[in-house]
Amino acid sequence: MAEYSSILLEKAVDEFAKLPGIGRKTALRLALHLLGEEEQVTETLAQSLQNMRHNIVLCRRCYNISDEEQCSICSNPKRDNELLCVVADMRDVMAIERTGSYNGLYHVLGGVIDPINGISPNDLRIKELIERSMAEQFREIILALPATIEGDTTNYFISKKLEHFTGQITTIAKGIAVGDALEFADEVTLGRSIANRIPFNR
Amino acid sequence: MAEYSSILLEKAVDEFAKLPGIGRKTALRLALHLLGEEEQVTETLAQSLQNMRHNIVLCRRCYNISDEEQCSICSNPKRDNELLCVVADMRDVMAIERTGSYNGLYHVLGGVIDPINGISPNDLRIKELIERSMAEQFREIILALPATIEGDTTNYFISKKLEHFTGQITTIAKGIAVGDALEFADEVTLGRSIANRIPFNR
Repeated sequence: MAEYSSILLEKAVDEFAKLPGIGRKTALRLALHLLGEEEQVTETLAQSLQNMRHNIVLCRRCYNISDEEQCSICSNPKRDNELLCVVADMRDVMAIERTGSYNGLYHVLGGVIDPINGISPNDLRIKELIERSMAEQFREIILALPATIEGDTTNYFISKKLEHFTGQITTIAKGIAVGDALEFADEVTLGRSIANRIPFNR
Repeated sequence: MAEYSSILLEKAVDEFAKLPGIGRKTALRLALHLLGEEEQVTETLAQSLQNMRHNIVLCRRCYNISDEEQCSICSNPKRDNELLCVVADMRDVMAIERTGSYNGLYHVLGGVIDPINGISPNDLRIKELIERSMAEQFREIILALPATIEGDTTNYFISKKLEHFTGQITTIAKGIAVGDALEFADEVTLGRSIANRIPFNR
């Protein structure tokens, strides 16, 4: 016999429970919730997931997720198209967009160079970045990769590949987080934060 | 502009976030997870939810959720069909089934009498219970409703309606939870647990 008196319920719980961070108890709660709501609620949820999965594409220019061939950032005439920010993941695009302090374009690599996990430069969109750096007119390319060894390696690799690029290449500041006390920052971060000190505006 | 660079993603996140206990951050994580998996994963999830919602019915006999007119418990010939357990909700059926210590049938009321929230006896399947108590041959009816004032009221109401019933009517034991220390039990529970003491097996 099934765990529940309904195989249909069991199947729905199984599928919910495959999602990250959703255990069987939560999955059951979600399924019973849908059973208690109008049929339309389940229909809308199911269709929006199918629509998303079937129709979302990667922007041909920056490789961010998009509903069309060119994403809403790339096709926005108000964005500064001489400024490019290189990120590892589309989550990073969202994070930077939420800050509201960046108005340029993006290039999503799809990860960072990570030999231990078998990710080589060819698995990333580095070739596409180099091509863009020649085809488009950037005055600055910002490397906004994770502050890890893999991120640093990728930064170095890209900077070598960008030797032809005459504009500025920058990387985001590493230092203590805004609101943090110095005593709680780790030594490496605090050390970098002193080494990369900037003029104080009096 | 949308919160994300994709309206399709936004819509999927919106729908996920309507589920109980799923915030927008979790909803985004779930949606991005689906985007990273094979298309079939999303398809299977969506279809299992639609299948469940469209096809699950209530068992005509006990009102538990079921894939057919009669649920797998009611139609199981190995269950003791002279023993009936009255519960408020289908979640209670699942909870009792998990204990593995009950082998009779169920009757799901669909709630308890709760005048403050506008739930009267007519909103529950009490009439159906009375009919079953006459149509089927139960030797015992167990009232397993919540240990609340509403549950007690419903117990009393049902017992009055069952005056014709010649079998035994019982209610589940209330007392301190197994593994609990006496000092942490509330006074009412501890009081009931002393009043309803049972012989000690020496």
